[in-house]
Amino acid sequence: MRELYRADLERLGRDLTEIARLVHRAVMDAQAALEAADVHGAERVISEDARIDQLQESLDEQAVRILALQAPVATDLRTVVATLRMSSSLERMGDLARHVAQLTRLRYPEHVIPEPVRTVFTAMCDAAVEVAEEVVLLLETQDLAHGDRIDALNEDVNALHVSVFRAIAAPDWSATPATTTDVTLASRYLERFTDHGLSVAAKVRYLVTGEWATHRPDATGS
Amino acid sequence: MRELYRADLERLGRDLTEIARLVHRAVMDAQAALEAADVHGAERVISEDARIDQLQESLDEQAVRILALQAPVATDLRTVVATLRMSSSLERMGDLARHVAQLTRLRYPEHVIPEPVRTVFTAMCDAAVEVAEEVVLLLETQDLAHGDRIDALNEDVNALHVSVFRAIAAPDWSATPATTTDVTLASRYLERFTDHGLSVAAKVRYLVTGEWATHRPDATGS
Repeated sequence: MRELYRADLERLGRDLTEIARLVHRAVMDAQAALEAADVHGAERVISEDARIDQLQESLDEQAVRILALQAPVATDLRTVVATLRMSSSLERMGDLARHVAQLTRLRYPEHVIPEPVRTVFTAMCDAAVEVAEEVVLLLETQDLAHGDRIDALNEDVNALHVSVFRAIAAPDWSATPATTTDVTLASRYLERFTDHGLSVAAKVRYLVTGEWATHRPDATGS
Repeated sequence: MRELYRADLERLGRDLTEIARLVHRAVMDAQAALEAADVHGAERVISEDARIDQLQESLDEQAVRILALQAPVATDLRTVVATLRMSSSLERMGDLARHVAQLTRLRYPEHVIPEPVRTVFTAMCDAAVEVAEEVVLLLETQDLAHGDRIDALNEDVNALHVSVFRAIAAPDWSATPATTTDVTLASRYLERFTDHGLSVAAKVRYLVTGEWATHRPDATGS
């Protein structure tokens, strides 16, 4: 029984990492589709998101089954509860990558992002992809250095997000109102994406150290 | 022991409803502040959000304690896990009401929402406030008619959200780019707010009927 229980917990951790890998793939593909105005790539991201949703549902069922059958306590209980929450953050990250892809599909064959802010968006997407990669590594290794890297990347993205709004408010902004809306949403999606990465990192840190950071994700946006 | 356990579960339910009441108050006040460009009202919403966050944290601690000490099974276990999730949806709803208030504060003494879309925003805010009210009633009574009403309101809000984007893309849209961004974000916040209400309703429905609806919240946005 004890060994079965350990195996169940390990499987839970492996499935969580698998979801994180799919999220990493999703945001990478969403960036490529956004930058190339590639409607097929965008559609792939959109349809692949269903897999993330399914995996998350099955992981949640597993977690509830472990709670019901094994009644874990102490660290194990915290791990199961944190896993439930991390899976929900990862599922949202998948949704947000899908939303970026949906913008790409909506505006095809046009580009979503106009010339003046393309460099900013490349930086934001690069950071979001790296956050997703660091989340995978953090879940695989529990090495908190990856959490620190996620914190730093999240700060970069927040600064880039603000700079997008600054560009929109500048006198030389000449994009159409519809493009302004797209840019606003795309920036918001990426900012939310990395913020969810931050909350996964906070949970792993809590599980490893037993201390809850005072940081609350999303002090600036929702 | 058994009676203590019942009392713990009941307290959990009461605290969840209390958070829902604070969320209802927050979105009502956020609407009033938005419509009157009232910076003091906006600041109150922003500072009050900390109470929602605290209550959610304490509720989550309680839920984990119940899992650890009582090892609930079957319906009780589903209730505790669903409560953890609903509290996180409610906490997000509080954040989103706060974000609307933050826009009001940012643009003060100007109005956030320009004349041509004020009627649409009044309708969206009215619906969001009603969703919050229906969430309170649903949690208090478990009467699924409130869940049905939330579904209907959510559809209304989705349609209004689309109509905001249509207004922005119309040839007579004359607001500044910064205002276009504000309008986009405010609309998005309200759409997300009601979508979280929908996911609370889905969880209560599941607890009451034992059946999980095929509906996934947020098929359109994130």
